[in-house]
Amino acid sequence: MDINLNIHSFLHGGDYNPEQWLAYPEVLDKDLEYLVEANCNIVTLGVFSWASLEAFEGQYDFEWLVTIVDKLHDKGIYVMMATPSGARPKWLADKYQEVLRVDEKRQRQLFGARHNHCYTSSVYRKKVEEINQELAKRFANHPAIVGWHISNEFGGECHCPLCQDAFRDWVKKRYDSIEEVNEKWYTTFWSHNYQSFDQIESPSSIGENGLHGLNLDWKRFVTDQTIDFMKAEIQVLKSYNSDIPVTTNFMYYFNELNYFKFKEHLDFISWDTYPTWHKNSDVEIAMDNSLWHDMMRSIKQKPFILMESSPSYTNWQGISKPKKPGMHMLSSMQAIAHGSDAVMYFQWRQSRGASEKFHGSVVQHDGSNKTRVFQEVKQLGDDLNGIKDIQGSLVKSDIGIFYDWENKWALEDAQGPRNKGMHYKETVQKSYKGFRRLGLNVDFVDMESDYSNYKILVAPMLYMYRNNIQQKISQFIAQGGIVIMTYWSGIVDENDLCFLGKVPYKLNDVFGIERKEVIGFYDDEVNSISTGYTYKNLCEVIEPIGAKTLATYESDYYSGSPAVTVNEYGDGKAYYIGADLEQSFYDDLYLNIIKALNIELPIDGSDNFPKGILTSTRTDGRDNYLFIQNFSQETHAVKVDESSHTLIYGEGFQNIKPYGTNIYKY
Amino acid sequence: MDINLNIHSFLHGGDYNPEQWLAYPEVLDKDLEYLVEANCNIVTLGVFSWASLEAFEGQYDFEWLVTIVDKLHDKGIYVMMATPSGARPKWLADKYQEVLRVDEKRQRQLFGARHNHCYTSSVYRKKVEEINQELAKRFANHPAIVGWHISNEFGGECHCPLCQDAFRDWVKKRYDSIEEVNEKWYTTFWSHNYQSFDQIESPSSIGENGLHGLNLDWKRFVTDQTIDFMKAEIQVLKSYNSDIPVTTNFMYYFNELNYFKFKEHLDFISWDTYPTWHKNSDVEIAMDNSLWHDMMRSIKQKPFILMESSPSYTNWQGISKPKKPGMHMLSSMQAIAHGSDAVMYFQWRQSRGASEKFHGSVVQHDGSNKTRVFQEVKQLGDDLNGIKDIQGSLVKSDIGIFYDWENKWALEDAQGPRNKGMHYKETVQKSYKGFRRLGLNVDFVDMESDYSNYKILVAPMLYMYRNNIQQKISQFIAQGGIVIMTYWSGIVDENDLCFLGKVPYKLNDVFGIERKEVIGFYDDEVNSISTGYTYKNLCEVIEPIGAKTLATYESDYYSGSPAVTVNEYGDGKAYYIGADLEQSFYDDLYLNIIKALNIELPIDGSDNFPKGILTSTRTDGRDNYLFIQNFSQETHAVKVDESSHTLIYGEGFQNIKPYGTNIYKY
Amino acid sequence: MDINLNIHSFLHGGDYNPEQWLAYPEVLDKDLEYLVEANCNIVTLGVFSWASLEAFEGQYDFEWLVTIVDKLHDKGIYVMMATPSGARPKWLADKYQEVLRVDEKRQRQLFGARHNHCYTSSVYRKKVEEINQELAKRFANHPAIVGWHISNEFGGECHCPLCQDAFRDWVKKRYDSIEEVNEKWYTTFWSHNYQSFDQIESPSSIGENGLHGLNLDWKRFVTDQTIDFMKAEIQVLKSYNSDIPVTTNFMYYFNELNYFKFKEHLDFISWDTYPTWHKNSDVEIAMDNSLWHDMMRSIKQKPFILMESSPSYTNWQGISKPKKPGMHMLSSMQAIAHGSDAVMYFQWRQSRGASEKFHGSVVQHDGSNKTRVFQEVKQLGDDLNGIKDIQGSLVKSDIGIFYDWENKWALEDAQGPRNKGMHYKETVQKSYKGFRRLGLNVDFVDMESDYSNYKILVAPMLYMYRNNIQQKISQFIAQGGIVIMTYWSGIVDENDLCFLGKVPYKLNDVFGIERKEVIGFYDDEVNSISTGYTYKNLCEVIEPIGAKTLATYESDYYSGSPAVTVNEYGDGKAYYIGADLEQSFYDDLYLNIIKALNIELPIDGSDNFPKGILTSTRTDGRDNYLFIQNFSQETHAVKVDESSHTLIYGEGFQNIKPYGTNIYKY
Repeated sequence: MDINLNIHSFLHGGDYNPEQWLAYPEVLDKDLEYLVEANCNIVTLGVFSWASLEAFEGQYDFEWLVTIVDKLHDKGIYVMMATPSGARPKWLADKYQEVLRVDEKRQRQLFGARHNHCYTSSVYRKKVEEINQELAKRFANHPAIVGWHISNEFGGECHCPLCQDAFRDWVKKRYDSIEEVNEKWYTTFWSHNYQSFDQIESPSSIGENGLHGLNLDWKRFVTDQTIDFMKAEIQVLKSYNSDIPVTTNFMYYFNELNYFKFKEHLDFISWDTYPTWHKNSDVEIAMDNSLWHDMMRSIKQKPFILMESSPSYTNWQGISKPKKPGMHMLSSMQAIAHGSDAVMYFQWRQSRGASEKFHGSVVQHDGSNKTRVFQEVKQLGDDLNGIKDIQGSLVKSDIGIFYDWENKWALEDAQGPRNKGMHYKETVQKSYKGFRRLGLNVDFVDMESDYSNYKILVAPMLYMYRNNIQQKISQFIAQGGIVIMTYWSGIVDENDLCFLGKVPYKLNDVFGIERKEVIGFYDDEVNSISTGYTYKNLCEVIEPIGAKTLATYESDYYSGSPAVTVNEYGDGKAYYIGADLEQSFYDDLYLNIIKALNIELPIDGSDNFPKGILTSTRTDGRDNYLFIQNFSQETHAVKVDESSHTLIYGEGFQNIKPYGTNIYKY
Repeated sequence: MDINLNIHSFLHGGDYNPEQWLAYPEVLDKDLEYLVEANCNIVTLGVFSWASLEAFEGQYDFEWLVTIVDKLHDKGIYVMMATPSGARPKWLADKYQEVLRVDEKRQRQLFGARHNHCYTSSVYRKKVEEINQELAKRFANHPAIVGWHISNEFGGECHCPLCQDAFRDWVKKRYDSIEEVNEKWYTTFWSHNYQSFDQIESPSSIGENGLHGLNLDWKRFVTDQTIDFMKAEIQVLKSYNSDIPVTTNFMYYFNELNYFKFKEHLDFISWDTYPTWHKNSDVEIAMDNSLWHDMMRSIKQKPFILMESSPSYTNWQGISKPKKPGMHMLSSMQAIAHGSDAVMYFQWRQSRGASEKFHGSVVQHDGSNKTRVFQEVKQLGDDLNGIKDIQGSLVKSDIGIFYDWENKWALEDAQGPRNKGMHYKETVQKSYKGFRRLGLNVDFVDMESDYSNYKILVAPMLYMYRNNIQQKISQFIAQGGIVIMTYWSGIVDENDLCFLGKVPYKLNDVFGIERKEVIGFYDDEVNSISTGYTYKNLCEVIEPIGAKTLATYESDYYSGSPAVTVNEYGDGKAYYIGADLEQSFYDDLYLNIIKALNIELPIDGSDNFPKGILTSTRTDGRDNYLFIQNFSQETHAVKVDESSHTLIYGEGFQNIKPYGTNIYKY
Repeated sequence: MDINLNIHSFLHGGDYNPEQWLAYPEVLDKDLEYLVEANCNIVTLGVFSWASLEAFEGQYDFEWLVTIVDKLHDKGIYVMMATPSGARPKWLADKYQEVLRVDEKRQRQLFGARHNHCYTSSVYRKKVEEINQELAKRFANHPAIVGWHISNEFGGECHCPLCQDAFRDWVKKRYDSIEEVNEKWYTTFWSHNYQSFDQIESPSSIGENGLHGLNLDWKRFVTDQTIDFMKAEIQVLKSYNSDIPVTTNFMYYFNELNYFKFKEHLDFISWDTYPTWHKNSDVEIAMDNSLWHDMMRSIKQKPFILMESSPSYTNWQGISKPKKPGMHMLSSMQAIAHGSDAVMYFQWRQSRGASEKFHGSVVQHDGSNKTRVFQEVKQLGDDLNGIKDIQGSLVKSDIGIFYDWENKWALEDAQGPRNKGMHYKETVQKSYKGFRRLGLNVDFVDMESDYSNYKILVAPMLYMYRNNIQQKISQFIAQGGIVIMTYWSGIVDENDLCFLGKVPYKLNDVFGIERKEVIGFYDDEVNSISTGYTYKNLCEVIEPIGAKTLATYESDYYSGSPAVTVNEYGDGKAYYIGADLEQSFYDDLYLNIIKALNIELPIDGSDNFPKGILTSTRTDGRDNYLFIQNFSQETHAVKVDESSHTLIYGEGFQNIKPYGTNIYKY
């Protein structure tokens, strides 16, 4: 199932909240006119419409929504229809207190804000089911509807008695006995042993917070329970028409939910991107934004939908800076370059009041279509039409980098060796940038992924093993793969229990090393290795047991001992990086590895591109598309082969103007 | 009614807490002796005396207080009598829990501290009425009593069920229907629509906090309810003798209460000043302190009372630094220069224990009258006697600057464009300093003031319009007035709903401009305009529609577009400042405007006075008084016309010594 | 009674938690083998074993523990047996809610963490008594047991209703009447007068927090109640065998409990040391660590036990850095040099899971005895055996420095003159370092100590007087002693009530000065005195009334007035330091005082030792031991007299290698 099956062109549009404007019919008419003028072909409806659809319990009013959907359809505009569960009406919270979340200090929250329902409450589930049913009844077979948008930006957790019970059931399913729980959570240490499952409570800053196994299982439960809630929503919708694909909108580096677990329950992935463009370096921000685009694409290995973005500025970040001229085009094309089949906005028309009234939008308070923003949006819509052949094509990669939520949760929750920051995210980013600056596409994987299509796997800080990952890594290398693993790997099992024995556990032979000591550094300490690179934060004293030393430490009592090693294992190679080394180390190492493997760069010279030039490719199996984007303020020359490549978007075959995007077909 | 009617000289004295010393009769005797020696003519009694007056419910003991008042009267010392509602006895809180405040997280506070009663509780109001009645009975007609000091430093808020009900009633009075509430508070956005008034709750960090209209109305309610409580206090007192004037003591830049709303309920204004002298620049602190003096004077356009100040140091600021020799005289005279008819202290004698035992006082723990502090206080009393003709005279100004609490609340509560700081206060200060450094008196106004006496109005960040201000501004200009308005003006109505249409709303023609974009800057970004001044934080891209451009931006994509404009409108001029420009920009602009208007400076050369020389004038209609004060460490020469001016205070006609004050009659 | 009576050698061992390994018999066997190999002679058992000993209420299982104690005994390893009250089983908290603490905001905590029981709860005391009885029954007369380790790191407070009642009883015992309470706590100030003892509540941030007398008494109560709880624990144990000595483990600069009050209830003192070695300067850290060793030794003026230390790194500090080679030996010998009779670790074997799994230990997760840590521990054990004659010897000092918990509590709780930091600890440290850098032993005393053995007393910031200290100081000086007192002394009585009269109260004649003003400085202000030293934070304007001025201030309005004075009084001298002067001032002053008194340095030239060389002595009355330790990275020469001294530990008679320790007998 594919979101764009029905449309065959890029989606362009955004969140539309007509319920805010029902008293202004002239505004609603203008919206229809403007949507067409701005080359939009889709809107998201209904995200926070519950109170407008059901102002009093059981009294539904869908007429306004049906009318709008019909009118949109008449204009050729499709609809992504949202379920309203992200924010409930006040009558619901007033009548059924249980739908309100309880925080980790066990205080029931008052009504307010959004995304704050108990996901366990059967009352809330029932009420959501009822309203979803009404929605599905009317829209599941409406020709305008091309997708369901489930709730909005799932997140948060609830510690109410219902959730405590649900968590206990979850624990009971996972473990055979309370004795096993005690063993896995290592409760003996401070006499925290449980005598029965009934005693288990969720972690709390005013209670139990030192059992890492409990903390980890609680996070797993939160993901599972959120998915369970979401599945209940989907089930109703699908029962009316199983052909309408479903999604929910993900967020930037969102830590609370393991997004990989949503994979099988969603038909396509979508996310909301709000980079702080023009804060310090656009180049760094572009790299960071591209990373999460690649993450979103990797989850289902399919095109994704950019569900929300601002055409200008946000209002909830510390500083609201509008995108400078050209940046909206550039950043939107970046999404396309990394596999998005859409550019969508939050929101179409700016609210008059309440908390997001100053969030950027296509139509602003002045109601004009003459603004810079409107004109840029319109131009983008036109440009997307011009390249619509690219829609549906895939991004293929030889490289997979581990970004594993459970591993991240565990290593950040553990005490030691650096409570002031383990920098998991930054370590992942370094490897990503090392490959991406060469123009190579990069996938992200977790410990449940299939690695068979990759030539290279990178395992940054693989602290935890789960899903038999150590064996899969051994096999991958034995069969000719390259694996790069770093410090702080191979330490605990899936319950955060330390392995007893040599580390990195069960991979000593594969990597040909043994870790002896782990050394934390204060934030201002910088050391270096024999090949000249510096490192910070963490390093390990390792002993080679077969590996070849590529670089040694330069100072302190472990001076001269290996910092970076490589080991031949089977048909492959196992690299080990013993310290938190600087970016240029990764850049150079990965270039060497790529050359040694004869992996082709997407374009000649991309290994020497200046910072700010980002390259990406999409393919539909027959045609290939090369994107070259310039996030810097200077024009840069590139050498693209004119005999093989055709410029289908952009100005100047061999030059990329500032904030410019060139697309070549080859 | 005038506080000093009975006295005809400046008030000099302070908070006196004899209830702390009832066990030390020799101390009380010494106090009387010392008060006379220190040239004091007034004390404030009773501020926190409730437990001493009513140690058990209904058991009154006023004897000690009557005795002290009589003795003071015998010595010619007047009394400002405080009602004790600022801190209640423990028995009251223990017996009637409802008098204790509930915080915004809905936790009932324990007994402790002060200023922490529920202002809605009818029990508390009744108990206050009873004790006030006892006070009034005894003192309303006592010849020593010259004023009532209502409670102490009103502030804070309560979220108890009683206050929730009172707030709901307040909302019902303001709006015709719940539909109107939904519209004005823009509740539709996140499905927060109310179905009835009963559902309304006060804002909370664990509940509703995104409805700016609600937040704003809650703040208005808090001011109204505080005033309502205060009025109930006043009513009892006035019923015994309506001639005794009433006040309550205000605080420095106090944000929680709209002080302008107290205007009609108080007979005179008083406030408590505690500048951090000798922290960095005394000159800047002096300017800041003078601003709030001018604010206090502006509220009733009459002399005010400096109710509390420290003769030396405070104990509650981060660092306690005594005033250096001369500073007490200088800063006390500054209050007089800006319209105070009093210099009063907290407190007369230092407490032995509890939280304020190290707060500065006239008599310290050593009980000596030989200290530097005592001698300086005594000298000041003598000096005030020497200039008593000035008492009662007014401060007149051609210039009004908007400082509107409701506008400030709204713009600081809104999300965007700079959640890291909008700097409303600093923007007001820049205009104030621009005029004040010239020696010109400045008034503060809000959107409910009368502007007919002004030649110049300054509207810094007039984000909100209320009370038809846009029309009043138009008229003011049309009739020949000068208005200077800045960026971030004309955006929302009195409910914080954005105007639909061009901005600054309904003043486009008057100012001859239209705002196109608003750009937030990170804290470390600095740009400049064509006339050389720099700006930070915020700027706007504006399009002139008739206005003349005075300066343009120098960089970024809007380079060359107007930054500062002026428009002729009717007989007046409308200046618009598009960016958060530096102080010197304001200094130069205002000097030019003053010159063009032929507004006379109070003294020749005051536009070139060095920093640290502050000038001010008072007049009684017949005689005028010129104050020149030197907050720097160097002697400065001034050219005062000896033929027209008489030096009535200070040393050296044409020289102002370090920390010196010269007063001339003319 | 002496902990080492039975052993006659230094203790070497650590916390051992076999209950975590009962499922791994091979691990337990290995432990026994390794303990012997590592030259250990003691382990601490049972610290958090309650749930393993009593998994269900009343169902005891001691078999595993008895077996282990027997096996240890067979190997010649002694046992320090801990009571398990530091962490309770979950069934206990679930069944008896009252055992859970209530925080100062009156919220009952959930089960979790450790050290979080209500120390008043009779239920908890009863349950502890029962389990302690079971322990005592089995082990009080077991030949392996050499000491009881009561609970673990006592700390924290509880505000539950039971504790409120206990506190009221405590107050009733201290004061004759509620009137006296009102007077002593100075409740009149804000009408906080109590009408009866029943109204008293513990301090709270949401209630009463401005009565310093209450705050102070609450802290005293917390110490008393903790000791009361501890005494109940001890009583049971002693009833089975009064010969087994008891201790509890203290912590580094622990502020919550007045450790001097524990003196009479413990047979020996022990503490847990975790310096952040290799963070910035090892030299400074060494000085700081030595200070607390000296504090621990001073409490009972006897050898103490280093109960916990890490052989490598911690896991709960911001950064985990292993001790570099040599540091474990050096820092362990430092404890010995300052009077410890033991070097013990937390913990023997690293946990597999939960919050401390990455805390350093002798045996790590790899289970190896080949690690650097294991080898260093083993070597230390061997070295300790080589110097066992030193065990039991004392550290003698001519110098006492006041470190008085109650004084510290009061001066840090008071508002003013520097709420941003009074720096009591740093002021104490400056005097300590001034003497210690000369190699002189230093004792710490509080206001209840005996001063008869000292020649010099230092009273840093003796803000509060209690226990008639002003008279004792006068006598001490009159009889020939030297006292150095600093600014902010002699201000309040034991209830934090300010003295009425001249200050420093009742010591004006003795010191020959009178304090006139106290001046707080902002953090970045630095001034200087006539002898060239700088000062910060605080200074006083003082007037000499007989004292000789040693230095004057150099700037501001009090320039030229005395900053440092000395007064001859009786046969002694009274020095007064009026400002927070820099370290070198103290260094020079103390060297001069020492020379004038002809106090002998422990070794020739120690007044010129480079930073990093620390010297200390122990004596058993017959033999003396000189320790010279080098915390720097360079070898340093020392001149030790070869005719009188014998090198019994270390390399090179006249040289101390980096991280080296030399011990000489003389």
